Amino acid sequence: MTTSVNTTKSLFEASEEIITRDPLPGSSKVYVNGKIHPHIRVPMRKITLSNDEELVVYDTSGVYTDPNVEIDVTKGIDPIRQEWIKARGDVEPYEGRIIKPVDNGYNTDEQLEFVTAGSKGLHRTPLRAKKGKNVTQLHYARQGIITPEMEYIAIRENQKLEWTKAYLADEERNGRLKGENFGANLPEEITPEFVRKEVAEGRAVIPLNINHPEVEPMIIGRNFLVKVNSNIGNSATTSSIAEEVEKMVWATRWGSDTVMDLSTGKNIHTTRDWILRNSPVPIGTVPIYQALEKVNGVAEDLTWEVFKDTLIEQAEQGVDYFTIHAGLLLHHVPMTAKRVTGIVSRGGSIMAKWMIHHHQENFLYTHFEEICEIMKAYDITFSLGDGLRPGSVADANDEAQFAELKTLGELTKIAWEHDVQVLIEGPGHVPMHMIKENMEKQLEYCHEAPFYTLGPLTTDIAPGYDHITSGIGAAMIGWYGTAMLCYVTPKEHLGLPNRDDVKEGLITYKLAAHAADIAKGHPGAIARDHAMSLARFEFRWVDQFNIGLDPERAREYHDETMPMEAAKTAHFCSMCGPKFCSMKISAEVRDYAAEQESLSEEEIKKGMDEMSQKFQELGGEVYIESAKLESQN
Amino acid sequence: MTTSVNTTKSLFEASEEIITRDPLPGSSKVYVNGKIHPHIRVPMRKITLSNDEELVVYDTSGVYTDPNVEIDVTKGIDPIRQEWIKARGDVEPYEGRIIKPVDNGYNTDEQLEFVTAGSKGLHRTPLRAKKGKNVTQLHYARQGIITPEMEYIAIRENQKLEWTKAYLADEERNGRLKGENFGANLPEEITPEFVRKEVAEGRAVIPLNINHPEVEPMIIGRNFLVKVNSNIGNSATTSSIAEEVEKMVWATRWGSDTVMDLSTGKNIHTTRDWILRNSPVPIGTVPIYQALEKVNGVAEDLTWEVFKDTLIEQAEQGVDYFTIHAGLLLHHVPMTAKRVTGIVSRGGSIMAKWMIHHHQENFLYTHFEEICEIMKAYDITFSLGDGLRPGSVADANDEAQFAELKTLGELTKIAWEHDVQVLIEGPGHVPMHMIKENMEKQLEYCHEAPFYTLGPLTTDIAPGYDHITSGIGAAMIGWYGTAMLCYVTPKEHLGLPNRDDVKEGLITYKLAAHAADIAKGHPGAIARDHAMSLARFEFRWVDQFNIGLDPERAREYHDETMPMEAAKTAHFCSMCGPKFCSMKISAEVRDYAAEQESLSEEEIKKGMDEMSQKFQELGGEVYIESAKLESQN
Repeated sequence: MTTSVNTTKSLFEASEEIITRDPLPGSSKVYVNGKIHPHIRVPMRKITLSNDEELVVYDTSGVYTDPNVEIDVTKGIDPIRQEWIKARGDVEPYEGRIIKPVDNGYNTDEQLEFVTAGSKGLHRTPLRAKKGKNVTQLHYARQGIITPEMEYIAIRENQKLEWTKAYLADEERNGRLKGENFGANLPEEITPEFVRKEVAEGRAVIPLNINHPEVEPMIIGRNFLVKVNSNIGNSATTSSIAEEVEKMVWATRWGSDTVMDLSTGKNIHTTRDWILRNSPVPIGTVPIYQALEKVNGVAEDLTWEVFKDTLIEQAEQGVDYFTIHAGLLLHHVPMTAKRVTGIVSRGGSIMAKWMIHHHQENFLYTHFEEICEIMKAYDITFSLGDGLRPGSVADANDEAQFAELKTLGELTKIAWEHDVQVLIEGPGHVPMHMIKENMEKQLEYCHEAPFYTLGPLTTDIAPGYDHITSGIGAAMIGWYGTAMLCYVTPKEHLGLPNRDDVKEGLITYKLAAHAADIAKGHPGAIARDHAMSLARFEFRWVDQFNIGLDPERAREYHDETMPMEAAKTAHFCSMCGPKFCSMKISAEVRDYAAEQESLSEEEIKKGMDEMSQKFQELGGEVYIESAKLESQN
Repeated sequence: MTTSVNTTKSLFEASEEIITRDPLPGSSKVYVNGKIHPHIRVPMRKITLSNDEELVVYDTSGVYTDPNVEIDVTKGIDPIRQEWIKARGDVEPYEGRIIKPVDNGYNTDEQLEFVTAGSKGLHRTPLRAKKGKNVTQLHYARQGIITPEMEYIAIRENQKLEWTKAYLADEERNGRLKGENFGANLPEEITPEFVRKEVAEGRAVIPLNINHPEVEPMIIGRNFLVKVNSNIGNSATTSSIAEEVEKMVWATRWGSDTVMDLSTGKNIHTTRDWILRNSPVPIGTVPIYQALEKVNGVAEDLTWEVFKDTLIEQAEQGVDYFTIHAGLLLHHVPMTAKRVTGIVSRGGSIMAKWMIHHHQENFLYTHFEEICEIMKAYDITFSLGDGLRPGSVADANDEAQFAELKTLGELTKIAWEHDVQVLIEGPGHVPMHMIKENMEKQLEYCHEAPFYTLGPLTTDIAPGYDHITSGIGAAMIGWYGTAMLCYVTPKEHLGLPNRDDVKEGLITYKLAAHAADIAKGHPGAIARDHAMSLARFEFRWVDQFNIGLDPERAREYHDETMPMEAAKTAHFCSMCGPKFCSMKISAEVRDYAAEQESLSEEEIKKGMDEMSQKFQELGGEVYIESAKLESQN
């Protein structure tokens, strides 16, 4: 039990340099106020284009990309929801659970000092629901209440609406691009009432613990934009608040809608405080991981009491959603025996080991209603874990997987009876032709509760490229109806992702989610593609970089072939060079078509030779223009 | 017209170091002989696993990865098909076209010296069909002849059969994984007769020019493994044969089934000689590019005569398939005027420019039968180009695109009347929900001629990641029935790909093609995944690296977290560490399930508590084993 405990001093060093705070190139932060709740300010990212147009896009990066906001990670960011929560009058502060050395993996009081020192300035008095109250967004929604969170989300989801409307004015295109949504309901404008209704009916969740007021509210549901989750973990030797916070900041910078903190080992309680107090996005955890730490990693020593204590600990800190593997039952376990890769979910195998050791039913299942009581006192969302997700394409969609999914559906109904919000986790490794069945069964068994899938990977044979094998599956399942995609990095199956891997995984998943939004026919989705395509057609290179998901890489790649600044405004690209450009010719085609239209139908029918002559008579403008263009290059 | 012409000496320097010749890790070359044609030797790549098993996989890398073969790029590789071609008695050598300076972009005789010097040792006397003969594989197939090429292909496509058969013995799994193939016909075993029939009916092509006898025969068709094409181009300043050859070698090393040489500018004739004489895979070109060079880049100066001369030039060199944009008609051009990105195909815009200038029908269309005459004299396969492919998701599946596709179908019938083989090129940029329509229309309009698509990209907003935006579309359209996928690199839309980009693009497309094969239910496809999954389950790390598409990257990523050699045999990975491992627990689950099965049904029904006791009585073996495993780590 030796570990190098850092001094308090080092914890707070060098914050300024470590946290990434520059806005993305060409971008600035804008805020939109609410109407029902005028005090809410919804942040968006405005991209200013070189033709003076503006493009507004969804922004997950929080205040970190707003240079007007001062941030001190040792104190935490502005708790924007604090007043909203208090104003509802249904919560009360209370002393809370006393932090123990074991929460951080220690067993002496001396080491506890580190815990309190590390969290100094970040500790908050926890809130919980008053006796007899239920503080979940689902509960409010069912009461017909439109919370500030709901209006916030409606504004946030809509933001491209003006672009969209202009774009969709073209009826023919609109018809072709209306999407195929497999029964999803995607209104042209998201109203606060629509948000409320979707939450009330369990089709969407707003994962917001009352003890995490720093979050910018967001929604996860099939009838909203497809979301992306990334996972982070503590470093082997925790070094400073800023470093741990930067991991989260880095992930949200590249579009992570939620972040799961999968830390294990030492200092996880303290690290979690750091992340939560500084996170503008919902934070999820898998509490069984910490509970296992508390029993020294021996699965069979786990008890309901240790687990419950861990739930309370994390609930008070402000974790927004818990992955809980309550659907894996004892009789499911033998179903995995003939699998090629058995049980690959960490939580699933912990519970399987516990069950086969004790030959008792999963205590997460037997205590499920008690868990619901905790969830509703803080508004924590269930992310019902798929402990039996397949670990290879060979094991996809088997008896074990779907038996557990069915149980998750039963648990969903129980959670809903408590007005507790529910996400359902999904696979894993699934070949393309078996992906749709996952979505269909999930909708059927789990009563349309939002699906949250890991990939799925569509083949096993590309270690080092599993962000791509899974990005394919993620795009498809997102199209079919999955509400949130858990990212996979290039290091999957091989090692721990570094900063570059996290970015690579996130951009891959953002593009997959976006491809899904387009395919579903989400009204706002295609606007950004349209802006990009226009920038391409008009050779606005800098706009192309800035509209893209990764402006830095786009510019870097362009610079490799054409480093000169002049090339950024050149009316050609390195692919064809200045002499010949298909985009330029397309401009000529437009002129030609315009000429064509000025002819009567009869004239058009007169045949090609005559037409040719007629065309010449109409003037050589096209050719003059063409020649001019040639000479310019 | 100044360019730095290299001396002959420098052309041949440093060949040995530049060409990549190491076999992939753990791999060696094996050859399988034919039965109908015993002299044929089909190369395969054998991966030797650490448990003494062997996995045999499809190998596109040619003799370059066989250390027993000596290679001199200034002389070219072994023309394995030479005798097969001669034995048919239907070809004749002839003097051939005289090489002109303009073929390489020069206009003085002095510079011609470079041409002949550069090709010294690589020039071959061309062959053509004897008068009245047709030397296409389609012609032979329709005569009922099983050529050596056909048997070669049957052996090559089958190679995983033994693995497959063992794997498919599990009926339950077999049932679940049988795939959805949308009308494809995938026999468990590919026979030479099946190859012949598929070729005869136009559903597959064997792109093999009689002047490119160096090729290891391969097939492109919906009822075979999905293939991948990569594009290469000459360097701005051509430096040496070895460097240009290495580009092709590098591409085939990472799985490129065919390579298109899209060189423009200087020395393209000579570079093409270098590539062809050293290439074990079919080489495709877009002859209009060279024709345009010959008229100094002025599209309106193109003539049928210049184009025809270029076809003959390349036919004699041995190009295996030509992209020809013969389906873009004059009346299609105005259909693109309202597009967001107009005409983005280079060949398409060249022809559009020519047509609107002359106001005449596309000369590739009006001379199509003459082109067929050339194609059948050398057995060159048409790759009918989609000059109107969409350049943005907004333009997908529009009137222009499908009008051209319909014309390609008409041309297919004409080519088939000449017994000329045909591929149909496809898009481009297509959102996910519109991909399937492309495949369905292609099958309908083009009479099941093989489809060959570029991506398609499923969103426009990720420059720098377009290998992934398009890898998603490629996997899907491959599943639906596309026979060959043209790769996209991360530099797409931004610049020219370097060596790393080529590899990244190829691995992405190989995994997409493989995911498609699995989803189609291709009998042999899943065997490699199965081998990988078993290696994962059994912690055979080195096997995991070597079974994967990129053994080098997999090992490098693993090393980043766990660099010690011992970690390569460790029974855990960096994700969970030695203390806890879900794979290990799965082994315990098997023991548990075995115990369960030894109980009668009645006993199982006696309820959980009783079962628990019974289980204890049966012995604590599971726990002992578990404890042993724990103590080992």
